This record gives sequence, C-alpha cells and structure tokens, in this order.
Amino acid sequence: MKRLKVTIMYDGFGFAGYQVQPNERTVQLELEKVLTNMHKGTIVKVVASGRTDAGVHATGQVIHFDTDLQFPLNRWQKALNAQLPGDIRVVSVEEVSSEFHARYGTTGKVYRYKWGLEDVESPFKRHYVVYIPGVKPNVNLMREAAQAFLGVHDFTSFCSARTEVVDRVRHIKRLELLENEQGELHMVIEGDGFLYNMVRIIAGNLWEVGIGKREASDMAHILSAMDRKRAGKTAPAQGLYLESVYYAE
Amino acid sequence: MKRLKVTIMYDGFGFAGYQVQPNERTVQLELEKVLTNMHKGTIVKVVASGRTDAGVHATGQVIHFDTDLQFPLNRWQKALNAQLPGDIRVVSVEEVSSEFHARYGTTGKVYRYKWGLEDVESPFKRHYVVYIPGVKPNVNLMREAAQAFLGVHDFTSFCSARTEVVDRVRHIKRLELLENEQGELHMVIEGDGFLYNMVRIIAGNLWEVGIGKREASDMAHILSAMDRKRAGKTAPAQGLYLESVYYAE
Repeated sequence: MKRLKVTIMYDGFGFAGYQVQPNERTVQLELEKVLTNMHKGTIVKVVASGRTDAGVHATGQVIHFDTDLQFPLNRWQKALNAQLPGDIRVVSVEEVSSEFHARYGTTGKVYRYKWGLEDVESPFKRHYVVYIPGVKPNVNLMREAAQAFLGVHDFTSFCSARTEVVDRVRHIKRLELLENEQGELHMVIEGDGFLYNMVRIIAGNLWEVGIGKREASDMAHILSAMDRKRAGKTAPAQGLYLESVYYAE
Repeated sequence: MKRLKVTIMYDGFGFAGYQVQPNERTVQLELEKVLTNMHKGTIVKVVASGRTDAGVHATGQVIHFDTDLQFPLNRWQKALNAQLPGDIRVVSVEEVSSEFHARYGTTGKVYRYKWGLEDVESPFKRHYVVYIPGVKPNVNLMREAAQAFLGVHDFTSFCSARTEVVDRVRHIKRLELLENEQGELHMVIEGDGFLYNMVRIIAGNLWEVGIGKREASDMAHILSAMDRKRAGKTAPAQGLYLESVYYAE
C-alpha cells in the first residue's frame, strides 16, 4: 500500500462544493468515482486539505489517498486526467509516507480572491471573478485596512456565526492587494489556517473600505469586538480560489 | 425612428450559434427577446455583421436595429445589460444614420483564435481556448507558413466545401501569431471578409505546420489547388473569437 499526494485544480461553478453530500455533484464524488473505477470497484476514500463551498474554485487543492495498484508513479497524472471530467484537473502526483495527511498535516494555506474592475463585465469571466457594477474601489484604502489583519488575532468577528471551532486565533502572514492587466483586483492571503468563511468575510470588509462604506481603521475595532455581527458582508463564492496548501517537510 | 449600432461580447459556449434557429438558444434570439420586451411586444429585428457558429465567441460583434423608443442614448447600454443574460454583454451603443447596415456595410473583420499551451489544461479555460494534449507547436514555423495567406488570394481550399458564395477571393491584411504570459498562443487575422469556416481552417492548417504534420511551404500549394480536400482539419469552434468589425466612415 502506498500513499499518494495529489494536487488538483477545479472550476467550482459546476459543483455543490468539494465534499460529498447526498444527490449533489461534488469534487470529492468525482474523484472517488474515478479512483474506485481504477481499483476495479474497491472503494477508495480521498482526504482533502479542507472542504471548499459551492462555487469556490481551486488552483492548488491537495488530496491524499492510499492505493495498492501496481502503476508507475509517472503515469498517474495522465491516467486520472483521462477519466476525470474537464472541470477537475490533476496538476501533480507524488508518493508520500504513510505519515502524510492532507488535512491534519497542513501548516498553511494561500487563498486568492478576484474582483473584476472592467467597465463592462466579461461574459467569459462571470463565474470566475466578482463584478460589482457601478463602483470602483480605492485600492490604497483597502491596502491600509489590510494591515489590521496581519499577525496573530482572534478572528471570531471574521468567521461564520455557525463556526463550531472554539479556538479562533489564526496567524495571517501575508495579505496583498494586486491589480493586474486583465482589469482584475486580487486579494492574496496566507495564513496558518482559516475559519469557515473567513477569507470571504475579510474580502467583503476590505471591499466595503474600498468603496467608502467603512473606514480602514474600523478593521481593528471589529477584530477586537469578537462578534460576527460587527463585520460587513461575506463576499460571493465565485471570486474565491484555494491556491496553495503547505505541509511541514 | 432611429438606428442604433451596438457592439456586443458573448460567451459562445451556451449558444447554438448567433443566428435564430428553431428550438435553440441563440444570441440573436436573446437580443430580440429583450428588445421586443422593451418595445412592449412590438417585434424588433436585429441585423448582425455576420453569423457565428455554435461555440464561437465574440468580443466585438456588431449589430444594428431600429427603434422609436424615447430613450436617451446614454441609458441604452445599462438598460440592455440589465435584461440580457450574463453570457451576452453590450460594450457600446451609438446612434447611426439609416444608411448604416451592420452586415452589408462591413469593410473588414478581425478574428482571434486561441490555443492553450500549458502542460495541464486549465479547467477555467476549457470552453475558451483549444487544448491539444501532448504536443507543443513550433511557433516560428507557423509564422513562416502564415506569410502565404497575406495579400489577395482565392480561398476555395480554405473554406467549407458547403460554401455557396461564388467569389472566394479575399484580402488578408494581417496574420499574426502571438504568445502571451497566460500560456496561450493566439492567431490574429484581419481581412476584408471571410468565407464559411475560413478562419478555423487556416488555424487548423497552421497548427498542423506547427506540430510538423505539414511543411510551411505547403500553404501556397494548397491555396493554388483551390480544393478544400487538399487542406487539413478545421480547428475547433471554442478557440474562435470575432474581435472587431470595421465599417467605412
């Protein structure tokens, strides 16, 4: 038996999220269907670094599974991509020790949130960036507001009220706002871990600062209030990408 | 009564092409539905610069229609975009004279054809570029081959065998192959007009040169043969974009 670590991309538009749920098309379901088929009906369970919600994308989600197939490592990527639907692609396959765990072994993650700032929404990007017509944000104000999140904080105000995790202290190591030549604004955020909806709530609040609905200085006050009701809206799912997952060497 | 010239973008993936046909979702149908609705049920007919096939995209298709609505010119774009589905967007609206005709008045068009050259196909671009796994083209050979098409030629070999138009002489003014930082190869072609499938057949043949299936010098021979059977494959629809349509001043 060997354990494989697999990095995947997926277009979240056609999925009811990552995790298997009854009567829904999910990324995990498609992966397990293909793997179970390759293992002649023996059910193969896949473990991911974490779930992603309906509509959320990934460019660097990490999963692991165990296999006893006698199959050369360098053929796995092609074999999986030949059977997976086009909205899931395998980027890389590595053999790892049985100690490796895609979920419990993570030491950090990077997410990217994308807004479209073009005057006319691109019909080609309508599922892949968020367009908010009629307003342009002040990106420098968003950058100023972003400073409040850097470092170690309790993110109770910036996670879903339904969050069950008790320890809401997280370490944000990087939070950048980048404009590109495709007319997009990206928020790139790296941390040791993220609570439910945390990236989308931070994105939603930075946007509100950008359009003048909140002050940059509000962010620190909302953090210290430890109350979800103090923070602004959760940004829509289709702007969010899970970009990288880190593990200890 | 005034005539409006409207430039639109559309994502061809969800359409059975531009032109109305029974029981199919088409771009023209969606445009006419919205306009007829705005005109309280009076049927409004739309004329386009030309049709596009199923799966083909547009970033600069031009249409015209006549209206007697008392509606300020600067509100048309917003009003149309509010009612149109997200896969069609209005880029601009201009008032033109009743002499203007979106189809008969064209003096030139620019098309763009997009291939994806990344090692792993992007799930986000699977409907918007063409991926041909396992091969990388020699772009310089494609550029060399492209020279044969520049200028005035009879394109009988490079249009669908079903083409009914008798005069197949067209003037190609520009044909460029451009690589970008998103891992794509674009063919940009400008001409005074194009025959049915002409851009896709030229793209398919240049690709065959790029992957060593044909010689760059074959292009001139195929042109002079005036026989569709001598040319290679038609490239797939989803790589093609109608980018600009030109009219006399």
